[in-house]
Amino acid sequence: MERIERHSSHEGWQEVWQHQSASLGCLMKLAVYLPPQAAQERLPVVYWLSGLTCTEQNFITKAGAQRYAAEHGLILVAPDTSPRGEGVADDAAYDLGQGAGFYLNATQAPWAAHYRMYDYIVEELPALIEANFPATAQRSICGHSMGGHGALMIALRNPGRYRSVSAFSPIVAPASVPWGQKAFAAYLGEDHEAWLAYDSTALIAHATEHLPTLIDQGEGDEFLQPQLQPQRLVEAAQAVAYPMQLRMHPGYDHSYYFIASFIGEHLAYHAQALGR
Amino acid sequence: MERIERHSSHEGWQEVWQHQSASLGCLMKLAVYLPPQAAQERLPVVYWLSGLTCTEQNFITKAGAQRYAAEHGLILVAPDTSPRGEGVADDAAYDLGQGAGFYLNATQAPWAAHYRMYDYIVEELPALIEANFPATAQRSICGHSMGGHGALMIALRNPGRYRSVSAFSPIVAPASVPWGQKAFAAYLGEDHEAWLAYDSTALIAHATEHLPTLIDQGEGDEFLQPQLQPQRLVEAAQAVAYPMQLRMHPGYDHSYYFIASFIGEHLAYHAQALGR
Repeated sequence: MERIERHSSHEGWQEVWQHQSASLGCLMKLAVYLPPQAAQERLPVVYWLSGLTCTEQNFITKAGAQRYAAEHGLILVAPDTSPRGEGVADDAAYDLGQGAGFYLNATQAPWAAHYRMYDYIVEELPALIEANFPATAQRSICGHSMGGHGALMIALRNPGRYRSVSAFSPIVAPASVPWGQKAFAAYLGEDHEAWLAYDSTALIAHATEHLPTLIDQGEGDEFLQPQLQPQRLVEAAQAVAYPMQLRMHPGYDHSYYFIASFIGEHLAYHAQALGR
Repeated sequence: MERIERHSSHEGWQEVWQHQSASLGCLMKLAVYLPPQAAQERLPVVYWLSGLTCTEQNFITKAGAQRYAAEHGLILVAPDTSPRGEGVADDAAYDLGQGAGFYLNATQAPWAAHYRMYDYIVEELPALIEANFPATAQRSICGHSMGGHGALMIALRNPGRYRSVSAFSPIVAPASVPWGQKAFAAYLGEDHEAWLAYDSTALIAHATEHLPTLIDQGEGDEFLQPQLQPQRLVEAAQAVAYPMQLRMHPGYDHSYYFIASFIGEHLAYHAQALGR
């Protein structure tokens, strides 16, 4: 691993690292915020998964999360949203290819060679963090939009791996909305059973663990009806008595201004689940 | 004035407006944060002046200032850093021309036609804000780097106009450092007396008002020695018994990670001076 950025931030350090990923077969960047407590002790980690078009930079420059991580003593890890590089398949559209990995393992050409973000987030990334930083194996996960899908789906598929999950404006039913249908058709082909393995609204019916789950959604979000529809997940959760908190916020849109307004409450929620 | 962006943020509104500026002779954008209290009452205004290469966007997306403005009930106004547009003189370098207005009134060709940021910030902008938003005439001013120069210099030249001034990593002696010397030679010509009218370290010797003044400077800032040297201003202030607080911060660099770490303290400082 090579450190390529380091900035003092709220008495801790905002770093950016790059490494050759075995899962993805390419050089990947990731952002790590180390709060001041990390100089003294091993700390739990909150993973942040970003949305379409994002890199490891968006969250660390726009969310204002470092202040709260420093208050609670949480490490924040924000990876990139897809494999990257000239040798990696891509598409001209913003919602397919680089910047749009959808946190799955692709099975179709030309994507299958590198697009294994599910393996990267679930296995490779935490192993890397826990081996190279003062991190415990206590983890929580959250994200925005496509990354909210990633956080919810990964938490549902990996009981015992996370203490809590939260999402801003998540894609909760990707198999049923245009963004997910386009990406899943390309990455997974036409087998709709394969799609449901990455669809939180389908997965929750079989959940064996009830993880603390918080979702925030802006009512002024232009993608709310066409792409997000969080009530689909809430209804599927109610059908299996899975406790879930969905908060609708009048006026808020899909932007980082929404995330910045409530990221403090999300990190407090994760801190409580992580015993901080 | 035309509103071109509006986002809910910390229960208030982050807006971006554009208007035809009389001082600058071009279309200008400016960012205005209205905290929730602005729906009920007129509020004081903190002006933020950005640094080289910035637009009205950098501060509002990266500083995390809205949370604190909402806590205290302060309107935040962040203008662009120079006149803009195809008809406005420019230079290929990042430190001259568009994005590098230096908050002065240029006297030299080709700059004199549009580069009148001093008049814009001192007169036109507050008049516009106080006529079109729920703002009182109570003002404070702050900024970063070139914008820290702008805030200090404008406050020193306009006693009675501001209640407090603060700066991150300011250029305090532009007539004596490369960034300022290059810009002043281009905009003001070779008359060094004209330069000193925009040099805070020169101006403070004749200050008739002692304004609450706070400066934060990172010790890990690559521009500290070549361009900033805040001790020059502190020494000039001491010579005339002008009270000034300079805080040196080990490790912090010139980036928005530094600003985000301490903007809460700056807004609390201004809130106190503004009676909030």
